[in-house]
Amino acid sequence: MTQYNNTRLLKALKRQTVDVPPVWLMRQAGRYLPEYRALRAKAGDFLTLCQTPQLATEVTLQPLQRFDLDAAILFSDILTIPHAMGLGLSFEEGEGPCFKKRIETLRDVKSLPIPEVEDELGYVPEAVRMIQHELQGRVPLIGFAGSPWTVACYMIEGRSHKNFITARKMAHQAPEILTALLEKLMKATTAYLKGQILAGVDVVMLFDTWGGLLTPAHYELFSLSSMQKVVANLKSDPSTAHIPIILFSKGAAIHLEAMAQSGADALGVDWTVALSAARERVGATICLQGNLDPALLFSTPQKIRLAVKNLLDEWGSHPGLIVNLGHGIEQDTPIENVQALVSAVHEKRG
Amino acid sequence: MTQYNNTRLLKALKRQTVDVPPVWLMRQAGRYLPEYRALRAKAGDFLTLCQTPQLATEVTLQPLQRFDLDAAILFSDILTIPHAMGLGLSFEEGEGPCFKKRIETLRDVKSLPIPEVEDELGYVPEAVRMIQHELQGRVPLIGFAGSPWTVACYMIEGRSHKNFITARKMAHQAPEILTALLEKLMKATTAYLKGQILAGVDVVMLFDTWGGLLTPAHYELFSLSSMQKVVANLKSDPSTAHIPIILFSKGAAIHLEAMAQSGADALGVDWTVALSAARERVGATICLQGNLDPALLFSTPQKIRLAVKNLLDEWGSHPGLIVNLGHGIEQDTPIENVQALVSAVHEKRG
Repeated sequence: MTQYNNTRLLKALKRQTVDVPPVWLMRQAGRYLPEYRALRAKAGDFLTLCQTPQLATEVTLQPLQRFDLDAAILFSDILTIPHAMGLGLSFEEGEGPCFKKRIETLRDVKSLPIPEVEDELGYVPEAVRMIQHELQGRVPLIGFAGSPWTVACYMIEGRSHKNFITARKMAHQAPEILTALLEKLMKATTAYLKGQILAGVDVVMLFDTWGGLLTPAHYELFSLSSMQKVVANLKSDPSTAHIPIILFSKGAAIHLEAMAQSGADALGVDWTVALSAARERVGATICLQGNLDPALLFSTPQKIRLAVKNLLDEWGSHPGLIVNLGHGIEQDTPIENVQALVSAVHEKRG
Repeated sequence: MTQYNNTRLLKALKRQTVDVPPVWLMRQAGRYLPEYRALRAKAGDFLTLCQTPQLATEVTLQPLQRFDLDAAILFSDILTIPHAMGLGLSFEEGEGPCFKKRIETLRDVKSLPIPEVEDELGYVPEAVRMIQHELQGRVPLIGFAGSPWTVACYMIEGRSHKNFITARKMAHQAPEILTALLEKLMKATTAYLKGQILAGVDVVMLFDTWGGLLTPAHYELFSLSSMQKVVANLKSDPSTAHIPIILFSKGAAIHLEAMAQSGADALGVDWTVALSAARERVGATICLQGNLDPALLFSTPQKIRLAVKNLLDEWGSHPGLIVNLGHGIEQDTPIENVQALVSAVHEKRG
């Protein structure tokens, strides 16, 4: 087992006592950092960054050189799986992800291969190994995947969309196609996260960015149930069972109680619900991660320190808190404000 | 007082017994109708349709000629107020609304005039009078406005945006500018809805499309409180006090209890929460409107009838239900499926 200098994240995930709460930020390696923009410009495009282990490693480590963060998160994308399945992913500037092929029929689903992680997705475990080599136990490394439903949204729509109406139509119109797709993605996601774990990640997180677009019945049927299966698969496999799992459904705060029954160790909470209210609802059986408004980081260091203080005061002395944003950091976030956030979390009881 | 042939909506709003629940659909006059697309093509653009009372009247009445709907809703847009304030609204094909000027400073806010409803916005009450003349009491007419927060989102961003980050930044960075803008919009919205009421609408609805993007504290401070003031203004004015008010915050299901305290007569509920669960939370003191998934309308008449049956069965025999979608109807919705929905609601206890 790796010996870590900084065990706050792993302790918080087990709801053990920590000196100060751990803090990391969704998309902490990203466009708000000038050194990221420089590397991205050199690489040419986003996908090259993800697919070149040396570059992914460098990007992953960049925010740790600036801020006293308690975790690193693998630099990658939630759409690596469908890309490896042959859908032809590209990222147009300002347009977001775009697939050459999209999923419309049961035949489309059946023709999708489940990628071999160490083969078509080999750049991901390779990056994990390189990052862990560089980190040398300084902080734990978080691996991740998109939730089956969220990845399916892009595969059905073919690109990003404000409300993924094509995927939601399929849920009503042809649930058997969606179910088959989710089943395949569930298997691919399990294998993908297992591959990341075997390569060395210490924690995994499932990003369900679009679970909140569904009706309550469809959320349980399509989003939550496929995540639960991934969690159950990892927890029942002796080679992955010890790894904590964080589950994050954005815009789905009314389902927190159901998510807490998923078998995950922690829940990500977005900024639209008070973290203390979330904790009251799910009880003390699960760790919570969140949930400052990414827009807060455009105010002042003083206001940010106050917001952190309020968050920690409202939370109280309970264990099982990981401070984060409620969604990814925005691309033009001022760096000194990120610094203020991280420091404020660590200064709290210092 | 107008004598109505169809009083289901007005009775449901007072939580009185009805033979069958009333049904109408958000954006029922819109692009899914070929006769709408024809008129829009003739008019040239969307804004001309809104600003020409004869055309707005024709569009408003179109869905009533096809479906047995229990209400008409004024054909207009939530951005008529900022357009009348001089921000220069246009609608680019496929781009959505766009303003020539956007609000950045306190000086920008102070320079905004509060439009005279019968002057700069005169096309709206004129359309209301023409529609009521044509309707001749067949069904009640719903007027509407955007919520101050939602309208402010567009004025600050200058256009539509997936998460209105510029407006959310202002909430943290310069709350005094946002507060001044909301105060002005609150006054303009009160005057605008009063103008619609004096011209003859029977019900008004506030569309808070973007309330769900805010933190809980900001939702109460910026979105809900400015709607509450509009409601209080209308309810305390003898010339408008008798008109029922529907309040709809999309993506804000966790705030239903707070909304129920707003003084509104009814709450719109989006499709991400079960209507029966919403009713349990707010109690029997307020009417609820919703909440079928707009994506459901892409399935089959049979599935739609089943979904309506489930909705009505779950609701039970309580008064105070208005059947609607949980968001506006999608533009390529099949017409026979809209027909199936409306019929299913009315057949239920027939």
